[in-house]
Amino acid sequence: MPYTLHEKIDGDFDAVVELTINSLEKEGFGVLCDIDVQKTLKEKLDEDFRNYRILGACNPQLAHRALEEEIELGALLPCNVIVYETDDGSVTVSAVDPEQLVGVADNSKLDSVANEVQKRFERVLSDIETNGGE
Amino acid sequence: MPYTLHEKIDGDFDAVVELTINSLEKEGFGVLCDIDVQKTLKEKLDEDFRNYRILGACNPQLAHRALEEEIELGALLPCNVIVYETDDGSVTVSAVDPEQLVGVADNSKLDSVANEVQKRFERVLSDIETNGGE
Repeated sequence: MPYTLHEKIDGDFDAVVELTINSLEKEGFGVLCDIDVQKTLKEKLDEDFRNYRILGACNPQLAHRALEEEIELGALLPCNVIVYETDDGSVTVSAVDPEQLVGVADNSKLDSVANEVQKRFERVLSDIETNGGE
Repeated sequence: MPYTLHEKIDGDFDAVVELTINSLEKEGFGVLCDIDVQKTLKEKLDEDFRNYRILGACNPQLAHRALEEEIELGALLPCNVIVYETDDGSVTVSAVDPEQLVGVADNSKLDSVANEVQKRFERVLSDIETNGGE
């Protein structure tokens, strides 16, 4: 079963990262964490890696609801959206499937929050698809 | 099934965070992401929340191996270690169970990396337990 929702975009990598951050903001997600995997692997291992960013997206209201319900859930948060260069030269944007991620906690009281994040991530991906080809 | 490995420590919150970061470093994990949940919820929602930090821990060699095997895995990385105030006044340190987290990807070729992170996280928790009561 796939564990991400994803879109492939023809576009410049940095522009797609910016578009992704903007589309997340429209749905109420701030990027609390931004890891440049290419830069990190170069610095730490001197390895050349494709352009790859991990954006940790957090909607404060939904995160607060989830943590009030289950204090340990922070071990699975924030929900990541990754942006990376694909072998064919396009750029892939993949959001972790929140229902699968939160499913690890196996707490049915978290279902509604996970479902809400899922719907928002679907709209984020759709927004990126709409605006990504410009 | 629990999805974290955890220890409860009697100690000052900030000191336990520092101890956790040091213990992670001993096992080759850098903290690539450090989210102050209390501060974030105060700023964004004006909500008072307990002390709570989400540390995104990454061992570059293991992350590189995992991403070479499965490019989408960044959606589940880094592996989080959370530190939070417990209701009884102690401090809990919880590391996400890497085998369960990576299990979401359902790719048996990732088992050895997940198992290696698991063993290191167990040593990190043991180190925190040993040094946390000082």
